[in-house]
Amino acid sequence: MRLGELSERSGVPTATIKYYLREGLLQPGRRVSATQAEYSEDHLRRLRLVRALIQVGGVTVAAAREVVAAAEDTSLDHHMRLGAATWALPQPPAPAGDDAATEAAHRTVDELLTRLGRRPERVDITFSPAYRTLVDSVAALLRLGYPCDIGNLLRYGRCAEEIAVGDLDLVTAEPTADGQVERAVALTVLYEPVLLSLRRLAHAEESARRFGAGRDEGA
Amino acid sequence: MRLGELSERSGVPTATIKYYLREGLLQPGRRVSATQAEYSEDHLRRLRLVRALIQVGGVTVAAAREVVAAAEDTSLDHHMRLGAATWALPQPPAPAGDDAATEAAHRTVDELLTRLGRRPERVDITFSPAYRTLVDSVAALLRLGYPCDIGNLLRYGRCAEEIAVGDLDLVTAEPTADGQVERAVALTVLYEPVLLSLRRLAHAEESARRFGAGRDEGA
Repeated sequence: MRLGELSERSGVPTATIKYYLREGLLQPGRRVSATQAEYSEDHLRRLRLVRALIQVGGVTVAAAREVVAAAEDTSLDHHMRLGAATWALPQPPAPAGDDAATEAAHRTVDELLTRLGRRPERVDITFSPAYRTLVDSVAALLRLGYPCDIGNLLRYGRCAEEIAVGDLDLVTAEPTADGQVERAVALTVLYEPVLLSLRRLAHAEESARRFGAGRDEGA
Repeated sequence: MRLGELSERSGVPTATIKYYLREGLLQPGRRVSATQAEYSEDHLRRLRLVRALIQVGGVTVAAAREVVAAAEDTSLDHHMRLGAATWALPQPPAPAGDDAATEAAHRTVDELLTRLGRRPERVDITFSPAYRTLVDSVAALLRLGYPCDIGNLLRYGRCAEEIAVGDLDLVTAEPTADGQVERAVALTVLYEPVLLSLRRLAHAEESARRFGAGRDEGA
């Protein structure tokens, strides 16, 4: 397809597509004349991913380039490609800190992962940005004195597992390895605000049930 | 207690406390001399909340001021105070859009909430920022053509409910209404990165189980 059709089918303006091409977020099309190039379904899929990252996920162009490069790195095995691509995604803000709280948080997180049946000493866990974010978040809770016991974290961990199994079903429903990597990255980013907003709505519902003026007094 | 003790017990430097006082994030202490003020346990608790919002949650000073004002507004009933304070928290980025996808997303979200036993027409749901974020996130999924059927959203919704019930148990464990509002806000912010990082770790675990080199072939 030509640039115009790529723009129409993706909903991304041609000027934006040209910008993504210049920034190396999209591989160049196949030249068919001095001024025209031909684009494929692969371009359309990549464009959809870039749009999800930048326009929806709020990811910077530099970070998106890193994600896309990792997703394309076919020298990695499939599990590592999925991992590398999502590892390059930006993490929630976390305070720097290398103190007693951080050490206690490390022990808590490792106990949590062990209780969830994982092996926290495995290199792909310890070095993942999500592990570091988790340790930092637990350290922040400990440092500020908010509740953060293992039972509470297990409750979160089990829900996260349930969600992940369903998410991976959606990923494996894609027939190709490339499609699976793209979908894994896109679903990671796009479902995060879904999960957080559903949690906030559920808080409001549960708060209304417990404290609301119109609550059922017989409950 | 004096400023020095407040700083020591909260772990917040005195210069930062003075900045929070100037910015109206912390109510002034009780003057005991021309140069000294006395601070209470209330100040310590408020300081802890402000620190959680700004240093850990990455919330701006302006947004933190709004959250703190809502948490203090005792003209509201308890449920509304909890709501107002968490409503003022920043939301994840969401694309603007008022198109066919947004309309379809509205219908999907309303069906989802109905299936979860809520009443989506209730004003405190429709007007909450989390509802708008959810609609925008679902619209983004629809617009980009990623899977977003009701079964999938229900899976997320049920996990979020389970999490919220446990969170409200932690909130109600606080004896005072003020303490409950503070804890609700702090736990909303501080557990968001915990949940997201546990989800990403669970993705990696499930991906390793399905695609990893060392997976159990007999599984």
